[in-house]
Amino acid sequence: MNFASDNIVGASAPVLQAIVQANAGAMAAYGNDAVSQRVRERFNEIFEREISVFFATTGTAANALALSSAVPPYGLCICHREAHVIDDECGAPEFFMHGAKLAGLPGVGAKLRAEDVAAYLTSLPKAPKQMPPKALSISQVSEGGLVYGLNELAALGQVCREHGLSFHMDGARFANALVALGCTPAEMTWKQGIDILSFGATKNGGLMAEAIVVFKPELAEALDYRSKRAGQIISKGRLVAAQFEGYFAEDHWLANARHANRMAKLLSEGLMQVPGVRFAWPTEANEVFPIIPQALDQALKAAGILYHPWTELSLPEAERVGETEVLIRLVASWATREEDVRKLLEIASSGVSRQAAE
Amino acid sequence: MNFASDNIVGASAPVLQAIVQANAGAMAAYGNDAVSQRVRERFNEIFEREISVFFATTGTAANALALSSAVPPYGLCICHREAHVIDDECGAPEFFMHGAKLAGLPGVGAKLRAEDVAAYLTSLPKAPKQMPPKALSISQVSEGGLVYGLNELAALGQVCREHGLSFHMDGARFANALVALGCTPAEMTWKQGIDILSFGATKNGGLMAEAIVVFKPELAEALDYRSKRAGQIISKGRLVAAQFEGYFAEDHWLANARHANRMAKLLSEGLMQVPGVRFAWPTEANEVFPIIPQALDQALKAAGILYHPWTELSLPEAERVGETEVLIRLVASWATREEDVRKLLEIASSGVSRQAAE
Amino acid sequence: MNFASDNIVGASAPVLQAIVQANAGAMAAYGNDAVSQRVRERFNEIFEREISVFFATTGTAANALALSSAVPPYGLCICHREAHVIDDECGAPEFFMHGAKLAGLPGVGAKLRAEDVAAYLTSLPKAPKQMPPKALSISQVSEGGLVYGLNELAALGQVCREHGLSFHMDGARFANALVALGCTPAEMTWKQGIDILSFGATKNGGLMAEAIVVFKPELAEALDYRSKRAGQIISKGRLVAAQFEGYFAEDHWLANARHANRMAKLLSEGLMQVPGVRFAWPTEANEVFPIIPQALDQALKAAGILYHPWTELSLPEAERVGETEVLIRLVASWATREEDVRKLLEIASSGVSRQAAE
Amino acid sequence: MNFASDNIVGASAPVLQAIVQANAGAMAAYGNDAVSQRVRERFNEIFEREISVFFATTGTAANALALSSAVPPYGLCICHREAHVIDDECGAPEFFMHGAKLAGLPGVGAKLRAEDVAAYLTSLPKAPKQMPPKALSISQVSEGGLVYGLNELAALGQVCREHGLSFHMDGARFANALVALGCTPAEMTWKQGIDILSFGATKNGGLMAEAIVVFKPELAEALDYRSKRAGQIISKGRLVAAQFEGYFAEDHWLANARHANRMAKLLSEGLMQVPGVRFAWPTEANEVFPIIPQALDQALKAAGILYHPWTELSLPEAERVGETEVLIRLVASWATREEDVRKLLEIASSGVSRQAAE
Repeated sequence: MNFASDNIVGASAPVLQAIVQANAGAMAAYGNDAVSQRVRERFNEIFEREISVFFATTGTAANALALSSAVPPYGLCICHREAHVIDDECGAPEFFMHGAKLAGLPGVGAKLRAEDVAAYLTSLPKAPKQMPPKALSISQVSEGGLVYGLNELAALGQVCREHGLSFHMDGARFANALVALGCTPAEMTWKQGIDILSFGATKNGGLMAEAIVVFKPELAEALDYRSKRAGQIISKGRLVAAQFEGYFAEDHWLANARHANRMAKLLSEGLMQVPGVRFAWPTEANEVFPIIPQALDQALKAAGILYHPWTELSLPEAERVGETEVLIRLVASWATREEDVRKLLEIASSGVSRQAAE
Repeated sequence: MNFASDNIVGASAPVLQAIVQANAGAMAAYGNDAVSQRVRERFNEIFEREISVFFATTGTAANALALSSAVPPYGLCICHREAHVIDDECGAPEFFMHGAKLAGLPGVGAKLRAEDVAAYLTSLPKAPKQMPPKALSISQVSEGGLVYGLNELAALGQVCREHGLSFHMDGARFANALVALGCTPAEMTWKQGIDILSFGATKNGGLMAEAIVVFKPELAEALDYRSKRAGQIISKGRLVAAQFEGYFAEDHWLANARHANRMAKLLSEGLMQVPGVRFAWPTEANEVFPIIPQALDQALKAAGILYHPWTELSLPEAERVGETEVLIRLVASWATREEDVRKLLEIASSGVSRQAAE
Repeated sequence: MNFASDNIVGASAPVLQAIVQANAGAMAAYGNDAVSQRVRERFNEIFEREISVFFATTGTAANALALSSAVPPYGLCICHREAHVIDDECGAPEFFMHGAKLAGLPGVGAKLRAEDVAAYLTSLPKAPKQMPPKALSISQVSEGGLVYGLNELAALGQVCREHGLSFHMDGARFANALVALGCTPAEMTWKQGIDILSFGATKNGGLMAEAIVVFKPELAEALDYRSKRAGQIISKGRLVAAQFEGYFAEDHWLANARHANRMAKLLSEGLMQVPGVRFAWPTEANEVFPIIPQALDQALKAAGILYHPWTELSLPEAERVGETEVLIRLVASWATREEDVRKLLEIASSGVSRQAAE
Repeated sequence: MNFASDNIVGASAPVLQAIVQANAGAMAAYGNDAVSQRVRERFNEIFEREISVFFATTGTAANALALSSAVPPYGLCICHREAHVIDDECGAPEFFMHGAKLAGLPGVGAKLRAEDVAAYLTSLPKAPKQMPPKALSISQVSEGGLVYGLNELAALGQVCREHGLSFHMDGARFANALVALGCTPAEMTWKQGIDILSFGATKNGGLMAEAIVVFKPELAEALDYRSKRAGQIISKGRLVAAQFEGYFAEDHWLANARHANRMAKLLSEGLMQVPGVRFAWPTEANEVFPIIPQALDQALKAAGILYHPWTELSLPEAERVGETEVLIRLVASWATREEDVRKLLEIASSGVSRQAAE
């Protein structure tokens, strides 16, 4: 039973099928093929307007390329201090942005509040010694599994406009956030001021399918050069494009995300019943962040359940993890089986009972 | 009939089959899966020693990463002035090497001669104003379709050792060169002094399968960081690894390359019979570079045959392309059908005949 | 009366005199002149061993170049979160290090404690997603005006050795720290494990005189190339070298630093007598950080005294600045006149008296 | 007798005097002082319009910063293949431009012809694999000592406008070109389409005085950040500014340049009389490029005259240097004494006579 991540399984059946199907025949190389063309138009439909789409092979590359189009080498990019871009990409954004700096701000559950961003921006000295802020990057779903509401996005978008920042969304779990909010892709992005989006499909059914979606046209101007120069334009472009074709067909992507979120909710509700378990913050998408007794942690591990411990850096001051507790992360995906969730919950309940009995 | 490139078709059947097969089940992410591990060991066998292997998603990324491990930001990398790294990658090497410089030297058929490299190195001023040379990069097969002989490789390797350079081979068409020489992978690489290799499989049956193979251990030290930072470590690493598994199985890769080279030879021998056709240089692997009458060029195009014109920059002075001639490149691949070759040759013969009759 | 900084006056007389004297006659360009040669040898004497010296035109360039020799583009450099390199150089280190990252740690008075650095290093994940730590940079004197004791330096040096880090000292106020400790340059640097030093003279009598002093030989290997490439090798090298000659002659530099520190001590002791004034931390070199009543702040400003407010970021939790207080920085230099210090103290005393009378 | 370069002597008397004079008193740091302000206004007058001026410490830094404002990291900058920026700066432009590429074109005497630049631009593929051209950089005076006429500048400016390129002039010997043409600074720059200029004074009387002069306002937008980040904003800004004040006063700079050019002309006319001496190209500013018999070369060296041999790369095909000839460069400066020129000419004459007598 693997709750460690949503990138541990291969592609879902429709996505794999699409790869196989697109494999046949000669096609123009470097993304000039018919499949890529069709998918680009599909993106336009999904986002209800003309947009620019650039395929990428990893979420890291998508994020770093997106930021490099928004932030000059001498610029500052604001993000949460636990954001994937600042913590988990070995400095890819700094590499692609040519030494621009990421400034990490605090916030519960790895979410940024508009007022905190505004206050930080206002506090920056206006002098050449200070790198000028050029972009804000948020993760939707956040690294803490939280979902920005439309109002929150709009407020951050407003701050960006007031301070002349481009607004980037890391959508590695875009679909999970989307179905959580029950809104349209347009509503969750450009309608709230998002200028550029890393649109991830790999975690939600793809095998390797990422895209940069650009709403502010000037950010798209050089992305083909930047992408080529980053070794991100694969010669047989159909490989990535086909996955998106399978992903979008018959709302497969939304179904996958709904399943993942539902599994997380089951986990969450079940664990809530277990004595001694509390939550770092609410479960809003496909990730659950319970604070559990050490004994339970040991019981789960003993049962062969895989998951990661988590940092308490974004926990509210008042809710620090105690000496006999552990903060963990459980991730559900499109491939998570309900029976595995139930089994985990059983083990959790009995683990605590056993402990109580001792 | 498409002779434009060897990257216009999808994966060969065994490679596609391997992708499908590896898709099932949960596996560790980021290349820590069993398939990736097996393939790394397979590389050891193929190269007859312990080596380090890093997977990449494009040849451009493989080249740029390889060079970035060998050349510091203030260093110079020598290559042919028509090399892929200097001409066709939108500056990816300069990006990955952080502004290091590529110096392009001349040479017939895009091949470098050891004596020319040595003379250039000797001519460089020894002063801080001069970026110090740190690597030599060659393409095997060359951009002109030529194959370096083992003696030629050894001579270049010797120059590298004498001047303290790392020796990089861009092996986008590694298999084609290998079967042309009839030697082992070890003989064509580290036994002649190659320190680091871009090992391409995409053009010869892969869908997206590239690897960096490192023979000089210190060049491997930071490649995992560099690769992550370049957005080149895909989360579902099995995708690339599985392709290599299919590629290597039952010498499928060698069979593919032999077929491609044979098709090129057929093309070459057939065109040699056509009046007015001469060759820029010999056909040694899977690419043919004939200089043809303009009328024939038109006839081939009229028949719907796809191919690219080529630059005469690396042609010997005495053999310039005449006013009524065109230098073209025809590429054969594992997927080229013999009947298409024969059809092309027929059209070529009759095209010239028609012309003669007019 | 200007207590805003130690870079607001020109060169001291001996330094200016040295510039004028070295101006005459033809000399080899780019630092190959006799003056530069003499000064390099003088540095050897001062540091009691063979070292490599590279001149620079700004402290920012010296720091950034020094760090670029110690930290590869994918590496991490640890410093205090208020360090000059992270806060006041518009990202110069990130530029020169090609996107390497600065990680800022907390510490009272902008000083780092060895145990905090060690704990941070131990906490870092060992995985390609985590940029590997490669250097520690400290400022001696710290941004908070504090001086690392020899034991503290040795402890940090020990942490560096244990974790394979290079150890950099930003010595913009090197002389002020040196006379504060009453030790030799060797004792304050390489004998405690410092590998590379930014040696500043501009604030202490120079007009524009900075040097990078390298103790670990491999860090010097490429610094001539890096320096040229950064536009830091001035053609008439005598300009900078001559300043150092004047600076070192007859221990002029130490006399200057002693004067500056004494003026700061006078300021500190005087302010200590003023009711309502307390100190953020002790005065150890040439900078004073008092927390003063707002009324006093206004009185000083009204009297035309120039200085900067300071951040309370590195203040101990228990000593936060109150609502009616201001934390300020007063800087003394070699050019500060004792009468100005006395005048400031008088104003401070009377300002508070007046306030009390009201 | 030193004809090796124009950077081997110190500052001229008025420039040194200005440094000494500006040394006294407290002034705002980082270029916010009164001297810097006055000099910026003086630049406006000299160029007959509002311009932006940024001081730099070396010509290399000025060039690299100027180009970095005009060329994005994925862009191409065209220059002569012997230009200082491509050949003598250890890759500073590539560093500051973050890996953008310099493309070096041929041209007699290191001058570019508008038609060659246009032809090159037209030949570039329009595809993401091709870095898009973004700037043209020329040197006025050229590396071969030639001066672009106003018509030639205008023609190049026209090519730049047509292809959307920024137009950069490396004016390390700006004054020498200016007095050679007998035109105004405005006529030699923005009136012919120059967008950004490296204005050098160091070779013509300065000690270390360089400036970037920006005519196209958008190129100035981020130069303060870029400059700070490159460690180019010295804290005691008066040092550079004062030199410019001395340099411009009473047309000192023009007098210096006229003297240097006159000395070069004397040299040139004298050598023309020496049997066996011919010229690579005409003497137009302060540098002379004679092709002399080897025997004469030995005689000059034996007499202790210092100068550099030169490359024949930019010599017209028909005028290759013979086996018994040497191409050399003689540089005159504001400090060259007429008697030294006469002495050299005497030695040259007698050297040849002696040779003839043998």
